Amino acid sequence: MIKSRGYAAQSPTDALAPFQFERRDVGPDDVRIDIIYCGICHSDLHTARNEWGNTIYPSVPGHEIIGKVVEVGSQVSRFKVGDVAGVGCMVDSCQHCSSCTQGLEQYCENGFVGTYNGLAPDGGCTYGGYAENIVVKEDFVLKVGHADNLAAVAPLLCAGITTYSPLKQWGVGPGKRVGVVGLGGLGHMAVKIARAMGAEVVLFTTSPEKKEDALRLGAHEVVVSRDAEQMKAQTNSLDFILNCVAAPHDLDAFLNLLKLDGTMVLVGAPAEPHPSPGVFNLIMKRRRLAGSLIGGIAETQEMLDFCAEHGIVSDIEMIDIKDINEAYERMLKGDVKYRFVIDMESLRKEAAAAA
Amino acid sequence: MIKSRGYAAQSPTDALAPFQFERRDVGPDDVRIDIIYCGICHSDLHTARNEWGNTIYPSVPGHEIIGKVVEVGSQVSRFKVGDVAGVGCMVDSCQHCSSCTQGLEQYCENGFVGTYNGLAPDGGCTYGGYAENIVVKEDFVLKVGHADNLAAVAPLLCAGITTYSPLKQWGVGPGKRVGVVGLGGLGHMAVKIARAMGAEVVLFTTSPEKKEDALRLGAHEVVVSRDAEQMKAQTNSLDFILNCVAAPHDLDAFLNLLKLDGTMVLVGAPAEPHPSPGVFNLIMKRRRLAGSLIGGIAETQEMLDFCAEHGIVSDIEMIDIKDINEAYERMLKGDVKYRFVIDMESLRKEAAAAA
Repeated sequence: MIKSRGYAAQSPTDALAPFQFERRDVGPDDVRIDIIYCGICHSDLHTARNEWGNTIYPSVPGHEIIGKVVEVGSQVSRFKVGDVAGVGCMVDSCQHCSSCTQGLEQYCENGFVGTYNGLAPDGGCTYGGYAENIVVKEDFVLKVGHADNLAAVAPLLCAGITTYSPLKQWGVGPGKRVGVVGLGGLGHMAVKIARAMGAEVVLFTTSPEKKEDALRLGAHEVVVSRDAEQMKAQTNSLDFILNCVAAPHDLDAFLNLLKLDGTMVLVGAPAEPHPSPGVFNLIMKRRRLAGSLIGGIAETQEMLDFCAEHGIVSDIEMIDIKDINEAYERMLKGDVKYRFVIDMESLRKEAAAAA
Repeated sequence: MIKSRGYAAQSPTDALAPFQFERRDVGPDDVRIDIIYCGICHSDLHTARNEWGNTIYPSVPGHEIIGKVVEVGSQVSRFKVGDVAGVGCMVDSCQHCSSCTQGLEQYCENGFVGTYNGLAPDGGCTYGGYAENIVVKEDFVLKVGHADNLAAVAPLLCAGITTYSPLKQWGVGPGKRVGVVGLGGLGHMAVKIARAMGAEVVLFTTSPEKKEDALRLGAHEVVVSRDAEQMKAQTNSLDFILNCVAAPHDLDAFLNLLKLDGTMVLVGAPAEPHPSPGVFNLIMKRRRLAGSLIGGIAETQEMLDFCAEHGIVSDIEMIDIKDINEAYERMLKGDVKYRFVIDMESLRKEAAAAA
């Protein structure tokens, strides 16, 4: 077994704190990665605090992982020691069901194995990327084409693919007018990606002070969603809306903005339900409300390549791992532009100092 | 002007009663039809009682009209005196907007003119099919291919097209497993049409006693939706669901039954909202919740032709017009198999007796 150190929550109310554990030995199909950066996703906090009611403790979150390959199994062909590699939300799936064979591992009919809080092949619980290393099956390891700014690449592994996948699926591109609701970790990626795909991008935010930033990130237009006049002016004008807000809110206000046959995709999962959307709003323009969950492995690679080609990374704020609990509190207040990323060198220094 | 007699509601609480009014003279593009049969749709009741808050009184409902052409304008080419003709939910639209030019008059950007409670070209309110005649622009008059059983054809003009259009739009056909929720006026048409389209049809009902009838109408399988075990057995099994229930109910119970990328279309519009659907149910299988409103004129003709070819009509109970108020009460209790149709001969006899 391979020793690892990370930060774990021991209960829903404990702060995350140093934790020692073991990774499995590198099997023939495995890649061992020393983690350099790990992004902080809101799902990390939901899981650490058991807000979805399914957390296994101790819990080591983190599924926006960038690292360096330090060991490969005998059957590994796509990676060699020294390569930069990425790991996202999944580390395994059945790979033979109808979803998996279509490259839609995120919808694996037997349940994919989450990078953390998943059922590991050895029967234990998977530990995520708030750690110094990770061992992952080659098929679930991504190649990273970005030449530099690797810390800012980390959030692409979840926030990037979560927004890229529905934008791609629903045909966003030139000639399409696309709304993005919420300028947070997901929303700011959606703006950058939709813009790079060639769409006309309208960003909706409750915060007028985010306007400048949204325009800088790539939005063509910014609408303050609390301003009824501004909202009314967008009625029936959008082909597609990517709604990145996880807090319960009035979906009708946005459904109303869709053209005939327009679709709004939800990628945020609120702990409490949204107010019920009006059926008339769906019927009267044949509109659609849909969901989307991250993306498959092949599509994640496609997204990384697309972002490398278009020079897209996340806007990040780097933190030391000891500041993770404070980062969670700031994330809850929306006080981050736009994603925290842990510099894992801080974990190594901390461990060395303690030794 | 052309004299007409019908039944109208004078206020939300008045019973429908005899009413004399006028139709416009037949213009160059118009067809005058003597109404033989008119189906009773739940929208008629909603409108008569102002349950959608937009009723103009007096209100003459009825938009499932079968009649005989008795006069045509000078420019009319598709109809001649003596033809059987149908009129559905619309009698006009702008005919130049993006929706209309695509044959989607039901989504006319300038608002279609409803067969009743619509804004007539002369500025008044349109009066529907609970009447002895109607004058309609040729473009909104349908040809009827059925050789007989014309009373049972009438409900196709609303219940038929409302179910045919989403079934067609979402690719229902051989190899597809399709759920129909609710065995009422819409649901029983959906079962017949989906079956004729070649799909495997699963009918969901709260009433176990409807099972035999559902099988007779064409369902391959009947699921009692109050039986948790039966519902569980359908999880992730349906490509598409047409939800015909207008009463508020738990949408999640049905969304859960959809496969990956499956869609549930709502065609019923409840006065009170449904409980809010769970976002996880949409996200975890990339499912879709959508709406659909009747169908365009060309598609209505296509539906009538399809039904004539496949021998599809509605299962009906014929009534005299004097029994309309009692029929409404029975409809509210679901006590009709499966659509009431008014024999308009009863109106003529009533008028003759009163004269």
